[in-house]
Amino acid sequence: MMKAKGRIFGEVPGYPSGSSFPDRKDLSAAGVHRPTMAGISGGGDEGADSIVLSGGYEDDVDLGDVIVYTGHGGNDPETGKQIADQTLTRQNLALARSCHEGLPVRVIRGARHRSEHSPPFGLRYEGLYRVDAYWAERGRSGFTIWRFRLERVSDGNALGSEPAAPPAGSPPEGVASPRRQVLSVQRVVRTSAIAQYVKAIHDHRCQVCGIRLQTGAGPYSEAAHIRPLGQPHNGPDVVENILCLCPNDHVLFDLGGIVITEPFLVMSVPQHQVIGELRRDSSHLLDPTALAYHRLLFDQG
Amino acid sequence: MMKAKGRIFGEVPGYPSGSSFPDRKDLSAAGVHRPTMAGISGGGDEGADSIVLSGGYEDDVDLGDVIVYTGHGGNDPETGKQIADQTLTRQNLALARSCHEGLPVRVIRGARHRSEHSPPFGLRYEGLYRVDAYWAERGRSGFTIWRFRLERVSDGNALGSEPAAPPAGSPPEGVASPRRQVLSVQRVVRTSAIAQYVKAIHDHRCQVCGIRLQTGAGPYSEAAHIRPLGQPHNGPDVVENILCLCPNDHVLFDLGGIVITEPFLVMSVPQHQVIGELRRDSSHLLDPTALAYHRLLFDQG
Repeated sequence: MMKAKGRIFGEVPGYPSGSSFPDRKDLSAAGVHRPTMAGISGGGDEGADSIVLSGGYEDDVDLGDVIVYTGHGGNDPETGKQIADQTLTRQNLALARSCHEGLPVRVIRGARHRSEHSPPFGLRYEGLYRVDAYWAERGRSGFTIWRFRLERVSDGNALGSEPAAPPAGSPPEGVASPRRQVLSVQRVVRTSAIAQYVKAIHDHRCQVCGIRLQTGAGPYSEAAHIRPLGQPHNGPDVVENILCLCPNDHVLFDLGGIVITEPFLVMSVPQHQVIGELRRDSSHLLDPTALAYHRLLFDQG
Repeated sequence: MMKAKGRIFGEVPGYPSGSSFPDRKDLSAAGVHRPTMAGISGGGDEGADSIVLSGGYEDDVDLGDVIVYTGHGGNDPETGKQIADQTLTRQNLALARSCHEGLPVRVIRGARHRSEHSPPFGLRYEGLYRVDAYWAERGRSGFTIWRFRLERVSDGNALGSEPAAPPAGSPPEGVASPRRQVLSVQRVVRTSAIAQYVKAIHDHRCQVCGIRLQTGAGPYSEAAHIRPLGQPHNGPDVVENILCLCPNDHVLFDLGGIVITEPFLVMSVPQHQVIGELRRDSSHLLDPTALAYHRLLFDQG
């Protein structure tokens, strides 16, 4: 893999969506995806700037605007089959950092990628996507794989390209004019009538830590879906699948920092220990299968 | 004002964007904006479902897709001039709740509203907007006014209509199929290379409470712009205008639950008391004028 100094997050000037490349060498020379072999271009401390879908992983899902991408590692280079567990390190960690930081990821599809969205030959840059979630799964092989859900950034979005954050000590040049500003969407919190209902039951008190954030216009809380909404999880938007959480615990829950164990205990995944008990209300039943589903996303046992 | 039971948040069936109405009575009968006099339709405990721009307030700003709407109260019904301070109660509180809950607000423009976006006669339903911020200001009159920044919800968005949350005791019918799901965007956290730089300086530790959220893929923090980005504040995206905060303190900072006082003390606005000191780093200077700007948004003294 090439050293990727001065990684560009966003569009590479001169190569708009739809740009075609005969092979990986050409794609690399253009700077659209610099590694000539690896599927993920990125560093664990800065994020991933691009990925290639090239049929290398049996578990990839490609719905066009939504892609469920399988992480790196554990597969036999000859057959592409998983032969060992993947870990959240190196390029996989880079994609997770892109999720945390809301960085745009260039997506390239290759002709060998089995999808109706693949180009007929060579490789094609398909535009910018955002990693909106990641989790672990047992792949078809029986081994743990890391999965990254990418959603296409709509063209009307304010996303463009920006250089990577420079090392500490040299602050990046800021932008004083909002016209020139380049921003990336990081975290979108959604709500619904069902979500509002759950928050009202708990009077906006966090079911994990008990905090009740107070503003001048009343309390603030968020509704966290236990089994996530949307592809590929397809969790339902029903009260039994929702927790009332403070923003901090919502982030930790969505990013797998905490899971809920069988008797409604809150477990810290990085610390591998129980840190408290989930606050419950008799008028708000929870679906244990949803909690088990969420737990499996981050704690394969 | 009419009683607005069964408030609809979102489009009213049969009245798409662009629907015209000869007068307020007709607009009310259609259910698009039910009060026949008031500019804001809403209740402090459920949120606001619609507003009318009709030239009643001297401080309204209308940029088309972005509207800075002036709250209710304190104006002379004859002249429209402010003659007293506005408070964050009743319909104003309803708009603030819509911000917290991410509820869509129907926007109607009247011919008397002084803007290039106004219809030539009567009233026109203009589509769904989202309240993405609110704050207080001294209006042109010298009195405090509450301001609500509304941004048009793009047509490609998944927003549609949904009934208000029913009272506690009767949970709303959930939706098991994601196709039928109606969601509203509540809170979008943005980032940039400059934001990443500030978060790295503080190693993702919150400058207000000192927490450092830990996930399996490393720490998580958010960058909060002190003087907000975009119209009408136009704060710059530079390190001096950014704080590294946990999601909880980011929400409190953006919604005016906390402000930073002159010697870098953190003050709770609802409690009117100092709750701590801002954690600072010698390599991250803050702009005192930006902090003063933010303070004035929520604490008029």
